[in-house]
Amino acid sequence: MEWTLNRKADNPLYQQIYEIIEERISYGEFPPGSRLPSERKLAQELNVNRMTIAHVYDELQASGLVERKKGSGTRVSTHKWGILPKGVTNWRKYIESGSFIPTYPLIKKIRDEAKQMKGGYNLASGELSPDLFPTHLLQSSFTDLGISEDLGSVNQQGHLPFRETISQYVKEELRIGTTSASVLVTSGAQQALYLITQCLLNPGDAVAIEAPSYSYSLSLFQSAGLRIYGLPVDKDGIDPDDIVNLYEKHKIRMIFLNPTFQSPTGSVLSESRRKKVLEISTRYGIPIVEDDPVSLLSLEGDRQFPLKSIDNSGNVLYIGSFSKVIASSLRVGWIIGPQSVINRLADARHQIDFGLSIFPQLIATQILQSPQYRIHLDDLRAELLERRNEMVSVLSEVLGDRITFTIPSGGLFLWCKINRKIDDHQLVGEALKNKFLYMPGSVYGAPNGYARFTYARIKKENMREAVMQFADALSRVP
Amino acid sequence: MEWTLNRKADNPLYQQIYEIIEERISYGEFPPGSRLPSERKLAQELNVNRMTIAHVYDELQASGLVERKKGSGTRVSTHKWGILPKGVTNWRKYIESGSFIPTYPLIKKIRDEAKQMKGGYNLASGELSPDLFPTHLLQSSFTDLGISEDLGSVNQQGHLPFRETISQYVKEELRIGTTSASVLVTSGAQQALYLITQCLLNPGDAVAIEAPSYSYSLSLFQSAGLRIYGLPVDKDGIDPDDIVNLYEKHKIRMIFLNPTFQSPTGSVLSESRRKKVLEISTRYGIPIVEDDPVSLLSLEGDRQFPLKSIDNSGNVLYIGSFSKVIASSLRVGWIIGPQSVINRLADARHQIDFGLSIFPQLIATQILQSPQYRIHLDDLRAELLERRNEMVSVLSEVLGDRITFTIPSGGLFLWCKINRKIDDHQLVGEALKNKFLYMPGSVYGAPNGYARFTYARIKKENMREAVMQFADALSRVP
Repeated sequence: MEWTLNRKADNPLYQQIYEIIEERISYGEFPPGSRLPSERKLAQELNVNRMTIAHVYDELQASGLVERKKGSGTRVSTHKWGILPKGVTNWRKYIESGSFIPTYPLIKKIRDEAKQMKGGYNLASGELSPDLFPTHLLQSSFTDLGISEDLGSVNQQGHLPFRETISQYVKEELRIGTTSASVLVTSGAQQALYLITQCLLNPGDAVAIEAPSYSYSLSLFQSAGLRIYGLPVDKDGIDPDDIVNLYEKHKIRMIFLNPTFQSPTGSVLSESRRKKVLEISTRYGIPIVEDDPVSLLSLEGDRQFPLKSIDNSGNVLYIGSFSKVIASSLRVGWIIGPQSVINRLADARHQIDFGLSIFPQLIATQILQSPQYRIHLDDLRAELLERRNEMVSVLSEVLGDRITFTIPSGGLFLWCKINRKIDDHQLVGEALKNKFLYMPGSVYGAPNGYARFTYARIKKENMREAVMQFADALSRVP
Repeated sequence: MEWTLNRKADNPLYQQIYEIIEERISYGEFPPGSRLPSERKLAQELNVNRMTIAHVYDELQASGLVERKKGSGTRVSTHKWGILPKGVTNWRKYIESGSFIPTYPLIKKIRDEAKQMKGGYNLASGELSPDLFPTHLLQSSFTDLGISEDLGSVNQQGHLPFRETISQYVKEELRIGTTSASVLVTSGAQQALYLITQCLLNPGDAVAIEAPSYSYSLSLFQSAGLRIYGLPVDKDGIDPDDIVNLYEKHKIRMIFLNPTFQSPTGSVLSESRRKKVLEISTRYGIPIVEDDPVSLLSLEGDRQFPLKSIDNSGNVLYIGSFSKVIASSLRVGWIIGPQSVINRLADARHQIDFGLSIFPQLIATQILQSPQYRIHLDDLRAELLERRNEMVSVLSEVLGDRITFTIPSGGLFLWCKINRKIDDHQLVGEALKNKFLYMPGSVYGAPNGYARFTYARIKKENMREAVMQFADALSRVP
């Protein structure tokens, strides 16, 4: 919720707040019978004194707009005022319907804090910092945007010239062979995962995911009614034999992997394990969904290529995206897979949103076709390497043997074990007091005492300060 | 599926086709065991002689890439070739999973024909013709696009400055009061409907829709497992008393209405019925979803305002979009409703695709803020009025008393009854032979013998020719 208060206006704050609430009640945004935010919560959101809100609510009650009862808070009056009708929809019954599981509370808390926090150190978000976006490429893509295209027809599978550009791009940069007919453009990797879990699986199906993994934090698996089984990840990724065990025990129907610079651990599935995973996948006929946001971001050693680059059997559904190499707000991702699967997903997609807006696709086409894009990728890798190095040295200096970590060879994240028993909720809370945000391991299904730090979002020169804040928070947790 | 053949190349067509299929098999796009398109279908798609395809398939068989069996068509070989593994995923089992109902076959057929047809008369699509898009506004919006915004953070509810622009816009143009906090930006009206059916209702719930209606053609209601009951539409829209009957019989939980220039009938819910519908909605606590793509396109008489403009109880969830006034490929729509509902839908949306790309939102903001936009709307209405008039006079002249229709006072569609018994499938088929596309009433749940003609997509000067083709097709149907 956003409220715009004018702290320099002539009319006092309490009056401004009163007027906004009155207006929103008259618009039906707070329907008769619905509950207003608590005094405490609203005061916090608006950054005003709680007494101010109490005063506003008193006035609203005096004018008959709201009713206040001990225990049930402040509700919009159900009896007539003005042209308000007497009856009203019980929206609560509707909001509790449907199969969408609300976002995991701890994640929601961290996300909300990140939005409201001014200053501070955000090592929680999985995004690049804005200075890493290819701003010049975006800017020049706008100038070059033509609109000769037929803007009236939406291609539910994705704009054809863009799909052709993508298939060229993945061939050159990722060694994945595909044709435009087998590419489905999605609204980021998230929609790709959503389509796959909703359209290719049934409620009750068993699937395997890495443990810990980013997927664990996604309520979409639970929302689709899937049973989730974990494949433990070590520094070389998952152990392929675990797949066979899960298959024999639970008849898993799909495997979700992020084999290259995995989130949160940063590990890379080793060459020999990749071959074995593919071999098992084809022997048992269990398809693999490869989520690959960052394989382009190899920071040292040999370039890592996706699992899909060595799959000729069409057993791997590949998910790519530009969120971590251009900008997440572009919302462009894609799926590569067998023709029949792509057709099915494209048809379902038509029901969900008709297809992606043509504009992000035109912009992405311009960017990919620019020779500057390769230079941007080199610059990005160089900058990320510096940030990673700084984080590694600062962590070692400041926290020493209080923590253990493996240096990630690519991607955006450093995964860190705290060498004593610790409660994640407590540590998150203490860190928040120091304006330090990170992702605790438990949201990824790890035991308490792990932390995922994003080194891509914080500038090198702020790294030491940030880690000091974390160390300070850690010292306060018993 | 798209195949690019080069008819001027040195290597013959059959060789080009052979190479594409070989390549696609090697990429896993046609996995081992999967079926290739039939000779007939592929020949049609590529616009080549069927013998050419037969020749290609023979060659593929000779090299061991495919196997051909009477009755089961041409399949990619499952025994080893090159590095192909022996096992493979049975994708068919996966494709048949999930709750998404495939698109209604007759609609899919018309849509596919529309894509492939060169020339001809498309009165089926519900879109504007490209010459009606505000091309100059789009073009200048690109030049003015700034990227000072934080491109790294996606607001799942929609970009805040855009939501503020929308709430101002609907206040001025549609008399809807709202604040940015209660606006959710969606990927067009389709995603708005998807979110509402998936998140606010449960499988098995009963809902009411207009009969005939556009909603009937949307598999999304069936995919969500809803029971659908029809509210018959006459020239003044639905009869409010029918809602009460449906409520008493089936306990309907939601009403989906397109009250202004309804698709397909073009009818407008009358003033007195609007009041009664709202009164019933609040008395029984049944919320209304108002789908309103075209109320801005009043072509004559008084401007029509949405139902939402007279709702103060928050009983109406309002769905708007730019698809019919800017361009459908922009994919920008929005929902306006009670705060609690918007919050719930925004949270679910985060699981589906994180939120809409920022670029269509920035573009739409530029367009709405331009004073030229109001001029565009005036021009658009003037042009649509001319096209409607031309269609009305041509239909009367050419078809006379073979048809009956009411002149629509706004929107994009003319709804037409054929004054004799006719089979929709047959008429669609005959019309296709004349390259004339229209939507038969049966896809909207009407009896056979109705037609929806879009007058927005065809130029005035082609209207007579188009209607002549339709008349010719009609005369051939027994």
